[in-house]
Amino acid sequence: MNMPKNPSSESLVFAVDLGGTHLRAALVDDAGRILNQLKQETPKGDSALCIVNALVKAAQQWESDKLPVVAASIMVPGAVDCKKAVVLQAPNLPSLVNFELKAELERRLGWPVFLENDANAAAVGEMWMGAARGCCDVISVTLGTGVGGGVILDGKLWRGSHGSAGEIGHTTVDPFSGLKCKCGNTGCLELFASATAIVRMTRENLSLVPESTLKSEELTAAKVYEAGRNGDELALAVFRRFGLYLGIGLANLINLIDPQIIVISGGAVNGWDLFAPEMYRQVEERAFRTTAQQVKIARAECGDNAGLLGAARLARTGLTGFS
Amino acid sequence: MNMPKNPSSESLVFAVDLGGTHLRAALVDDAGRILNQLKQETPKGDSALCIVNALVKAAQQWESDKLPVVAASIMVPGAVDCKKAVVLQAPNLPSLVNFELKAELERRLGWPVFLENDANAAAVGEMWMGAARGCCDVISVTLGTGVGGGVILDGKLWRGSHGSAGEIGHTTVDPFSGLKCKCGNTGCLELFASATAIVRMTRENLSLVPESTLKSEELTAAKVYEAGRNGDELALAVFRRFGLYLGIGLANLINLIDPQIIVISGGAVNGWDLFAPEMYRQVEERAFRTTAQQVKIARAECGDNAGLLGAARLARTGLTGFS
Repeated sequence: MNMPKNPSSESLVFAVDLGGTHLRAALVDDAGRILNQLKQETPKGDSALCIVNALVKAAQQWESDKLPVVAASIMVPGAVDCKKAVVLQAPNLPSLVNFELKAELERRLGWPVFLENDANAAAVGEMWMGAARGCCDVISVTLGTGVGGGVILDGKLWRGSHGSAGEIGHTTVDPFSGLKCKCGNTGCLELFASATAIVRMTRENLSLVPESTLKSEELTAAKVYEAGRNGDELALAVFRRFGLYLGIGLANLINLIDPQIIVISGGAVNGWDLFAPEMYRQVEERAFRTTAQQVKIARAECGDNAGLLGAARLARTGLTGFS
Repeated sequence: MNMPKNPSSESLVFAVDLGGTHLRAALVDDAGRILNQLKQETPKGDSALCIVNALVKAAQQWESDKLPVVAASIMVPGAVDCKKAVVLQAPNLPSLVNFELKAELERRLGWPVFLENDANAAAVGEMWMGAARGCCDVISVTLGTGVGGGVILDGKLWRGSHGSAGEIGHTTVDPFSGLKCKCGNTGCLELFASATAIVRMTRENLSLVPESTLKSEELTAAKVYEAGRNGDELALAVFRRFGLYLGIGLANLINLIDPQIIVISGGAVNGWDLFAPEMYRQVEERAFRTTAQQVKIARAECGDNAGLLGAARLARTGLTGFS
């Protein structure tokens, strides 16, 4: 069941952002418009069929009165074998691992089904409709609960030889920090430049800054940001530290891959005004000067829709040519 | 003056390794055999014409009694604009910077002329005739006076958006070491995993290990290696440290790019038996386990000829397709 090479522009893709907590689905047209959208809790349960059923129900409720749907494209937070369209690893969606998702959905929906890692889809979305429009060498860095990454070179996703390229969050930025990451490494970028890291770094230093308005209970990255905006010294120091490590990681990306643009997305990007000055300073000090001056570092523009848009685009184009 | 798409296999490429100290030239056939070879000092002087004259003389002395030469391919230790075939930056060959090397050589030799960075050429050489035969996603890491890198993805050189990808030696592996690199950054891999680093790390620690046979005078990486082979504790500690930082850098490469193979070359690779155990240990601890188990880390096989072979291959094929 292959998709036609050039699907009509008068057609839609059924795009799905299948998160561990929420499932979002949308119909996306050829111009990147999101025509319908729903968000619901991801069905829990031991069987992947609960998820398949929810997707089929969503697809069918929209099918009748719209342009023809030519493909379904699903993004998941985990490692994916895109050729076989099988989820290899997904800590938050264990029932999907090694399940024949493509075959089952194609049988039920009658459309070709594509599968992609969420960070890769977000990178494609930003290249298609967001901050990286017009670029072909793009690195996307998502600062959320963890830190994800997607790499596009020469207009095509670079997934790596074994499907695990772009793990920017698990490059080492402080090898002797003693801080252990859940990936097994110590000193990963994710330990310093994620929403989780903001909370941890704040909590660890509360006693050092007794005048801080922040309290140990119910700390969130958003509260730390608000405190920082109000001049709280502890919060400001935490975001500077966040920017410092992010800058080290980005400088490594620049010296190693030399992209046109690095697009920063995810919930923690809301703290941009507090972490960006130190981030830029590190990049300037650490990356090759003439290259760093040409590589753009920009905030994402598609928000939560980057992945949905990217998934739709991937189903519609030959962007997957590397794999 | 374009080269025919499929030059006859009964033809030769005039390949040149244009180093700051020595110039090596060779005739290379389509099977990767080096038919003639010469090595001489690189002409010094303010004018690039001294170098051009030496290359023309070398080319002409071989021209008469061989198969037809179809191209000249020059590798230089510096940043190159491959499209224009102009050297952008080369600290050890300042007269070549912005000189019309391609135009001048084509006029004098009558062959199309190609230009490439030395680390990139070495990566291609190892893919063609060395440790990475049969692979298409290759990272080459050269441990010499400094640390260089070349990246091949999907069979093509990835030079980056601004021609400076693959600068593995200038990725940060110890940001707070306080050690300043000549590139401007602190804590670069090159400061810990090069021949220069072996000498520095030994010298810095001589007083801590008074029983070491090594003396401050005339220290070289080769002498430290010999001492290590004879059980000298200081030398062994230096090579372990070398391996530790190299392993951190390679783990970052694996998590970010996920190649099939990493090929390690350069003079300092002679210390392999002393640094490799710690290098492998770091990769195992730091890179994603399932990926790291599949990425091969191998010693280069082409020795000093990797660059010459790669230059010849690049002139003959479409490997430059990315740029």
